Amino acid sequence: MKVRIIVASLLAFGATAFAQSNEPIQPVKSPAQINLGMVELGKKLYFDPRLSKSGFISCNSCHNLSMGGTDNIPTSIGDKWQQGPINAPTVLNSSLNVAQFWDGRAADLKAQAGGPIANPGEMAFSHTLAISVLESIPHYVREFKQVFGKGKISIEEVTLSIAEFEKTLVTPNSRFDQWLLGKADALNADEKAGYKLFKDAGCVGCHNGPAVGGASFQKMGLVVPYKANDKIEGRSAVTGKDADRFNYKVPTLRNVEMTYPYFHDGAANTLTEAVDVMGRIQLGKKFTADENGNVVAFLKTLTGDQPSFALPILPPSADKTPRPTPFGK
Amino acid sequence: MKVRIIVASLLAFGATAFAQSNEPIQPVKSPAQINLGMVELGKKLYFDPRLSKSGFISCNSCHNLSMGGTDNIPTSIGDKWQQGPINAPTVLNSSLNVAQFWDGRAADLKAQAGGPIANPGEMAFSHTLAISVLESIPHYVREFKQVFGKGKISIEEVTLSIAEFEKTLVTPNSRFDQWLLGKADALNADEKAGYKLFKDAGCVGCHNGPAVGGASFQKMGLVVPYKANDKIEGRSAVTGKDADRFNYKVPTLRNVEMTYPYFHDGAANTLTEAVDVMGRIQLGKKFTADENGNVVAFLKTLTGDQPSFALPILPPSADKTPRPTPFGK
Repeated sequence: MKVRIIVASLLAFGATAFAQSNEPIQPVKSPAQINLGMVELGKKLYFDPRLSKSGFISCNSCHNLSMGGTDNIPTSIGDKWQQGPINAPTVLNSSLNVAQFWDGRAADLKAQAGGPIANPGEMAFSHTLAISVLESIPHYVREFKQVFGKGKISIEEVTLSIAEFEKTLVTPNSRFDQWLLGKADALNADEKAGYKLFKDAGCVGCHNGPAVGGASFQKMGLVVPYKANDKIEGRSAVTGKDADRFNYKVPTLRNVEMTYPYFHDGAANTLTEAVDVMGRIQLGKKFTADENGNVVAFLKTLTGDQPSFALPILPPSADKTPRPTPFGK
Repeated sequence: MKVRIIVASLLAFGATAFAQSNEPIQPVKSPAQINLGMVELGKKLYFDPRLSKSGFISCNSCHNLSMGGTDNIPTSIGDKWQQGPINAPTVLNSSLNVAQFWDGRAADLKAQAGGPIANPGEMAFSHTLAISVLESIPHYVREFKQVFGKGKISIEEVTLSIAEFEKTLVTPNSRFDQWLLGKADALNADEKAGYKLFKDAGCVGCHNGPAVGGASFQKMGLVVPYKANDKIEGRSAVTGKDADRFNYKVPTLRNVEMTYPYFHDGAANTLTEAVDVMGRIQLGKKFTADENGNVVAFLKTLTGDQPSFALPILPPSADKTPRPTPFGK
């Protein structure tokens, strides 16, 4: 908070000349024009496991806001402990992505939010069943009415609310952003050297913009083929084009210290390993241990203020609420 | 908050004559002598799924503080989706219990907290492995040192911290407690009639004290045998005495509106059903629909202020941190 005030003061007093300009990475900004009622409703839904068949899995199970908006395991656990096919991307700053999912099959957060609920390998429910649960809970009925002014709940409103909450999950004020905004001593020498190398080596070609990624699809294994732990073929599943095989959305590197393990298959446990692999297969470059260490040091400066809010209290089910079926059936 | 201030003012101005005295249920009080550093550490541990083998299950998975400190399913989901043998009791106000678990096999919260971590059907980890994870995470090492002043982390300190956090999970200020403290219109006529019946019928014989239960072990099926959905035999597993078969700890009824489904096997989905079964098998009494409705109305006045705190942000694992094994092995 202190830093924010200092930065704001600097800006207010015309000290913008200190800010770094012409950098390929820009500071993360807080979202504009947020509907607060919708955010509060979406926050409850995000934490509500009654949107799953089992009553056990919520959005927060795999995009855990205590853990960088991820689950920190290679691929996620779905209904009945099914092993997911792909690493859960962080929900933090996901509003900045060009599209959602690794293959970009959802145009935006609203389109994404409906996916896991109805995916048999994830929450294993259906939109119809999820709505019937919500409509049976008087508090939800009142809150949806308050926010949307309608008497009936639809999946449109559910996903719109979850997406609105997710738009608030940005992480400003990282040390790197403080440096971008003019606080010269926010980074140490190693971190600055790491950032310089990140630019000079070409990492920044894909990892740029306010999210340090998320803006394009790129081939995994551009110079050297990537030996994946899975058979996921990426973007081609959406476009049907052979040229898009093994193309994935470039992940954001914001909070990357918290979003291990790395890559679409979660195969890299550490930043050291991820930086080494990326250098070799994407850039044809073998970083020395020192270079690798500096890039990793720079990447750790991208951890911003994590979303801070009170754990939501969910309205209890009513007698008529359909009960979850965690076992059998 | 407003009500609290009013009540406090009444008390301060010597208006205690309005308060209900000689009632078998007493208001829930906030805990005294809490170590705040330990609470903050325990809160992180409570939410940290790295205390499980899979990296997916935390204390909060089954004792979910968004949902009355329970999971709202009949029996819990453990590692690899194993079906638990018994209904997860609420963690709310659990510091008021005479002992922990349905069979009372743990003397206190500290003794309880270590159980699920090492239970192969629950978090499926071991205390040694849990400690090795925590000791690999620099932030945890610092925080344990700050709180306990020692260089090494032990399971004692882990369970002590979780227990200290759990002591804060009390729910004061329910409408019933407001009424007990002198706010005569905090309950309506049906709720008051329900409370009178709760006393007259004998429910209060077991469900009494500040937790409205939790103070004794009683036989399930005192008058009419209970047809259980399981083979759990309760307290006899601890004492070895045949007389203790089907004896269970009387559950707290605080926040009972939120802690469905009911009984040690989670067989009763609604309060209406639970009140009906309890009346018949424990008291030999068949409540009319009106009587049942009034008792249920009274029970819903026991919902207090739910714990309110910011979702904890967990320190990231280090390169050397052992990784969870959600699948295989």
